[in-house]
Amino acid sequence: MRDVSIIGIGQTRVDEHWDRSLRHLANDAILAAMQDAHAETADALYVGNMLSGTLTRQEHLGALIADFVGLRGIEAVKVEAACGSGAAALRLAYGAVAGGLHDLALVCGVEKMTDTSHGETTAGLMMAADADWESVHGLTFVSINALLMRRYMYEYNVRHADFAGFSVNAHRNAIGNPNAMFPQAITPEQFAKARMIADPVNLLDSSGIGDGAAALVLCPTAMAREYRSRGAVRIRASSMSTDAVAVHDRPDPLWLTAVQLSSFKAYQQAGVGPQDMDLFEVHDAFTIMSAMSLEAAGFAPRGQGVWLARDGAITREGRIPICTMGGLKARGHPVGATGVYQVVEVAQQLRGEAGTNQIPGARLGMAQNIGGSGATVITHILEAQD
Amino acid sequence: MRDVSIIGIGQTRVDEHWDRSLRHLANDAILAAMQDAHAETADALYVGNMLSGTLTRQEHLGALIADFVGLRGIEAVKVEAACGSGAAALRLAYGAVAGGLHDLALVCGVEKMTDTSHGETTAGLMMAADADWESVHGLTFVSINALLMRRYMYEYNVRHADFAGFSVNAHRNAIGNPNAMFPQAITPEQFAKARMIADPVNLLDSSGIGDGAAALVLCPTAMAREYRSRGAVRIRASSMSTDAVAVHDRPDPLWLTAVQLSSFKAYQQAGVGPQDMDLFEVHDAFTIMSAMSLEAAGFAPRGQGVWLARDGAITREGRIPICTMGGLKARGHPVGATGVYQVVEVAQQLRGEAGTNQIPGARLGMAQNIGGSGATVITHILEAQD
Repeated sequence: MRDVSIIGIGQTRVDEHWDRSLRHLANDAILAAMQDAHAETADALYVGNMLSGTLTRQEHLGALIADFVGLRGIEAVKVEAACGSGAAALRLAYGAVAGGLHDLALVCGVEKMTDTSHGETTAGLMMAADADWESVHGLTFVSINALLMRRYMYEYNVRHADFAGFSVNAHRNAIGNPNAMFPQAITPEQFAKARMIADPVNLLDSSGIGDGAAALVLCPTAMAREYRSRGAVRIRASSMSTDAVAVHDRPDPLWLTAVQLSSFKAYQQAGVGPQDMDLFEVHDAFTIMSAMSLEAAGFAPRGQGVWLARDGAITREGRIPICTMGGLKARGHPVGATGVYQVVEVAQQLRGEAGTNQIPGARLGMAQNIGGSGATVITHILEAQD
Repeated sequence: MRDVSIIGIGQTRVDEHWDRSLRHLANDAILAAMQDAHAETADALYVGNMLSGTLTRQEHLGALIADFVGLRGIEAVKVEAACGSGAAALRLAYGAVAGGLHDLALVCGVEKMTDTSHGETTAGLMMAADADWESVHGLTFVSINALLMRRYMYEYNVRHADFAGFSVNAHRNAIGNPNAMFPQAITPEQFAKARMIADPVNLLDSSGIGDGAAALVLCPTAMAREYRSRGAVRIRASSMSTDAVAVHDRPDPLWLTAVQLSSFKAYQQAGVGPQDMDLFEVHDAFTIMSAMSLEAAGFAPRGQGVWLARDGAITREGRIPICTMGGLKARGHPVGATGVYQVVEVAQQLRGEAGTNQIPGARLGMAQNIGGSGATVITHILEAQD
């Protein structure tokens, strides 16, 4: 199979875009990525999206967006894997380019979540869980994460305050990201006093929904120089793993098996380990997911992921910087777009274009996108090419 | 890239399955396909589905179904391209196996449409059209096809009765298919007198919705003999093209550009032409779509597709048999599953397992699945391997 590189990136600000429809957001991100790549066309488009049918009564996004961006006729499809839809779309585009099906592939993650009642959006998000065994009992994603967080605190003797570092770090990093939705610094005291959502998960444990789109242009690494003289980013690894959708079906609810499987498949493909990463874009939908992800991905022993937040290891100056542009928490979490935002941000770091948030000398970064409460996990490892 | 073969097929009857949930239907089809292939595991699952979010409040079907069929952990994703979702899933699986990403891939098309009010289903299907420019005006898919049929009759001086052959042929062929939803013979007189839905489209111009699932197992052609000594079916071509979603955005509403693009890309890949096909599973969602598809795919000159129905060329004894197991019209049209049903049926013909519907000596067959009113078109050409 061929090596694959990212030669173009684009994104809109995550926000309440009441003046931009879903197709306009996708268009903005895709055209920015194509311009960045100096690409005037593309062979195929892979759209990551979860909620367009439910919230905007629009499916068939592949053909719709391909036409809207001026590429009527090309192969185009929508990919859905709950909140992992964005990286799932990248995974399929990667396979198509690596395998030789296409030379120039577009990836776009797009989601429009705020032009609706909050009840509709909350209910829509619950379609990522098991409808027959979880949603039917009235669970929401916040309450699923509250159950996990409570159990984690009990099993590992952890206080709620110990999670503060995740949120403080994300908000600090969002300040330097012009595309972030919540670029406001917060303190551990504010974290402790934030409004309760589902005990023990409070407002500052939770990522915020938003509208947004992010896009990538991929081509074989051997062709990257035809498009740009420098700044291409090589995809060293791409992997997807799954787990039971319903949390109660897993032998240990505190262990994200699919994170472990997906991460270690990626490490194997790239021939590297967690110790080699200069940054890690974690799927921090809730602070508890950050702690559990760091453990299953091999950055901390079982039950000790939370201490990386308390010790400062996850900050830009720390051992393993996470959420370097704000993460889901503070950049915002337009669910089907998030996985593409994460990869755009790793690319910004590896290209040395992360501004005040730059991790000095970053060469190798990882992005991990999760669907549901750990049932689909897609991991990409990226490397600066030149 | 590697040649790819279909080594296992499975399907449920298309019906109102009020006792089977979406995951049960998928399970039945996948396990049948794996048993048929003598495969005990798989590397990846590609699920084609359009309406699970809207009609059953369940997304995230990749992980959900992978787990339910006993393959927890494997790569799994849902693909959506409106009524073309099934073949789009096959297209992605084909690319993954051809390109070397996976050796053993499952494809499952599944849809559950009848446990809901008809209004909900009709509104759901309309998400395949352009929400901002078509659905908003109150159009339904029947009325879009009525506009196309009326225009076709006007432009080419055709009577409604001239379309009867499509419906008569489909119903005749469904009788020999134990998985068909409407295995009842009809006459041209019954066709003429059928209840009007949206003038001139009547009940017997229209395919019926249903619940159902169909599945395939793919592997590299070079490995097919490890699984079965005979009966493998080689994928000679796979292609996907798109067009404007809104019909009014196309220069000529009576010409299916994406059918033409997709068909001729497939002919080129396979090195064959329409004259070489022993059968063609057409996307006969409405009789007008059959006529227009036959033209754009090169089986009839412009404006003359309808005469293939009147002349009997499309029957099992004719020059180009279509809908040999009943088609969308009489097998039934569980939208996201249909594209996989079509390929299962071509495989049945090429394996000589089509029973009373067998096309004698069938070696080469084509299946074409359409999303929306021609905006996504996926074509596969299949060949008997031994």
